[in-house]
Amino acid sequence: MSLIVAKFGGTSVASPERIINVAKRLVSIHDGGDRVVAVVSAMGKTTDELMGLANAVNTNPPARELDRLLSTGEQVSMTLLALALEAMGYKAISFTGRQAGIETNGIHNKAKIMRIDNKRITDALDEGYIPIVAGFQGIDANGDITTLGRGGSDTTAVAVAWGIGADVCEIYSDVDGIYTTDPRICPRAHKLDSISYDEMLELSSVGSGVLQSRAVEFAKKWGVTIHSRSAFSEAKGTLIREESAMEQAVITGIAHDTSEMKVTIRRLPDTIGVAARVFSALAANMVNMDMILQNTSLDGTTDISFTCPASDLGRARETLEEILPEIGANQFDVDEDIAKISLVGTGMKSSPGVSARAFRTMADNNINIQAISTSPIRLSMVIDAAEVERAVQLLHTAFELDSDSIFEETQLSAEEIADKMKKGR
Amino acid sequence: MSLIVAKFGGTSVASPERIINVAKRLVSIHDGGDRVVAVVSAMGKTTDELMGLANAVNTNPPARELDRLLSTGEQVSMTLLALALEAMGYKAISFTGRQAGIETNGIHNKAKIMRIDNKRITDALDEGYIPIVAGFQGIDANGDITTLGRGGSDTTAVAVAWGIGADVCEIYSDVDGIYTTDPRICPRAHKLDSISYDEMLELSSVGSGVLQSRAVEFAKKWGVTIHSRSAFSEAKGTLIREESAMEQAVITGIAHDTSEMKVTIRRLPDTIGVAARVFSALAANMVNMDMILQNTSLDGTTDISFTCPASDLGRARETLEEILPEIGANQFDVDEDIAKISLVGTGMKSSPGVSARAFRTMADNNINIQAISTSPIRLSMVIDAAEVERAVQLLHTAFELDSDSIFEETQLSAEEIADKMKKGR
Repeated sequence: MSLIVAKFGGTSVASPERIINVAKRLVSIHDGGDRVVAVVSAMGKTTDELMGLANAVNTNPPARELDRLLSTGEQVSMTLLALALEAMGYKAISFTGRQAGIETNGIHNKAKIMRIDNKRITDALDEGYIPIVAGFQGIDANGDITTLGRGGSDTTAVAVAWGIGADVCEIYSDVDGIYTTDPRICPRAHKLDSISYDEMLELSSVGSGVLQSRAVEFAKKWGVTIHSRSAFSEAKGTLIREESAMEQAVITGIAHDTSEMKVTIRRLPDTIGVAARVFSALAANMVNMDMILQNTSLDGTTDISFTCPASDLGRARETLEEILPEIGANQFDVDEDIAKISLVGTGMKSSPGVSARAFRTMADNNINIQAISTSPIRLSMVIDAAEVERAVQLLHTAFELDSDSIFEETQLSAEEIADKMKKGR
Repeated sequence: MSLIVAKFGGTSVASPERIINVAKRLVSIHDGGDRVVAVVSAMGKTTDELMGLANAVNTNPPARELDRLLSTGEQVSMTLLALALEAMGYKAISFTGRQAGIETNGIHNKAKIMRIDNKRITDALDEGYIPIVAGFQGIDANGDITTLGRGGSDTTAVAVAWGIGADVCEIYSDVDGIYTTDPRICPRAHKLDSISYDEMLELSSVGSGVLQSRAVEFAKKWGVTIHSRSAFSEAKGTLIREESAMEQAVITGIAHDTSEMKVTIRRLPDTIGVAARVFSALAANMVNMDMILQNTSLDGTTDISFTCPASDLGRARETLEEILPEIGANQFDVDEDIAKISLVGTGMKSSPGVSARAFRTMADNNINIQAISTSPIRLSMVIDAAEVERAVQLLHTAFELDSDSIFEETQLSAEEIADKMKKGR
């Protein structure tokens, strides 16, 4: 008998029919002999609609009231799910963040969980109920409702899983797991049976946003095994957990991101403190710089490039137009047609040839690399946006991700995977 | 400086624009130097929509979960109103039933208020906030959310007004007060400046449902003055409060109700216990009988008639078809074309001629009275539905309600009415 937390996102509870399907899924877990706690997001686009109402009466809504408003979305979906379970003859009880004992700091709209006291949940389980917890919300020391930020229901699920000592935290969504790369651009991509926390975090940070990064960080910190799977099929998804010796692929996955652009500042005086001044000003204006690269100085000036999200471009322009004349530079270019490709894999740490193989693949196929950045388990390259699909496909093949059989776990039976899940933490 | 509770119903907060109008109304009270606490219902048809969602997943939803679900409606409107006030530069803070200290018994869906602790509200007022309270809801001894039944926001408003010692409980709606009779069928009807609690209760019970009866009962018990007025105009409405010596009209208002029907059981054996058996069975099957009348016995049998809401007719038929054969009667008729007219007025107690004048008016105009019932301040008559408009108009004239000047208070200035309001409790 396992203890499972099952989290369902907004798409999975978007209508009464889908809520009934979620209830059936919970019933099937329950009837299978496991104990289950559900965590739910708000129905469909409810949170956006509530935000729209708030903006209609106040273009800059205060955080405390906004949190209370947004928290009603999950309270609706959780009660509807409880009602659906009761209609099927099962005992169900819903809990707000407050009742579920999720205590946060007082930072409204993006509160951090400080303490978890899940006694009401475990008591309800002991009494044979299927407990249902409102995602995304907690309560601060003043007794006011706080929310955990967009996607915070994943974090709630992991926190509850840790709090009650669950064997696994199942996160249901409209995708059936984590893939080696985006299957829409690489038909030979395949679903991973498992991935380590660090790999998942690197993939999240570069654009494969199936799970909220904070939830993965929380899971890593507290050793909670996550199972990312589809709400619309019974198929096993992908386990996110501590890396195991079995996983020896050099590269686990390839992410790409076309949402950034590259800004190049021309002929910046190459004197101490100039670059620092430019980047301090950009940071102060909330421009999130990703990669930064600087050419060698030729005539006492240098070119500096950085990448940032397209949404930050306006602020970047304003900042540069203000500061460049002050420091004797006045020209910058923006290249919107770039893409970032990231190879992610824990195996990279023990396989020195990764960057050589990646650069060779690109060179052999005449794809120019404009910038490079690395972490111990990630290699990112900026290339021309027009080449992104071809580059992903080439790298996917070059790093032997095309085959379905490179992971030993793919050969496991469903029972063996279930058994692994139980032992996961 | 007065202390005012201002309650706004679902129509008044049905859209962001209307919520902004409510905020403006509160600001105008606040800027006028008075202190104000708002109580709000859910936006428009929200409660019906939530009920629809609940019924889509569970045709017989358990009360605890349903209460929590329905309570979210007011939590949305209260936060939006707070946001609107903040946007106008005023300090506002919203409170759930729990935070407003409204403690109820544990009867979900129709909880009764047991205790009120409005400290958070008065503290907020002292700090210069405009407090906003979610109507319709409280919290039981288990910490679970309860709701007060449909229209319960009126009761919340009166309870909060009593709890904080408000000078008046203003109840805003889409009607501008209480009228002598329905202006749609009697153009000479006029708005009353004031009406007593008992008169209001009698009018509510016979179909003039502007205010929830329970709210009026609560107001009567605790001496809270209610001001029923329009959310869409500045005009003074109608005060509901203890009767004063100034109000000497014999009849205060005339209500009519066409939602009932009359059932007549023919040739029931006129022996002891037979009528009791019939009416016990009807009551056991939840048929709400209003008037009952029995003809004199002629040949050992009698005819008995009763009126009941049209919505109860199905249950009444089933009951009678089952029980009449057992007691030697087997025939009953249903007359759907009836109307009930009720004259209501505290002055009736000291004016013996009311029924004579009413019966004379009907007789002079060839309107047949089929049944009569009375209370100390009410005279109800059942007539043919086709005659209802004419009868209301005739009685309105006969009891001198047509003129606008029969109430002394109509001559008072707005300031004098305001002064009376403050002294009202």
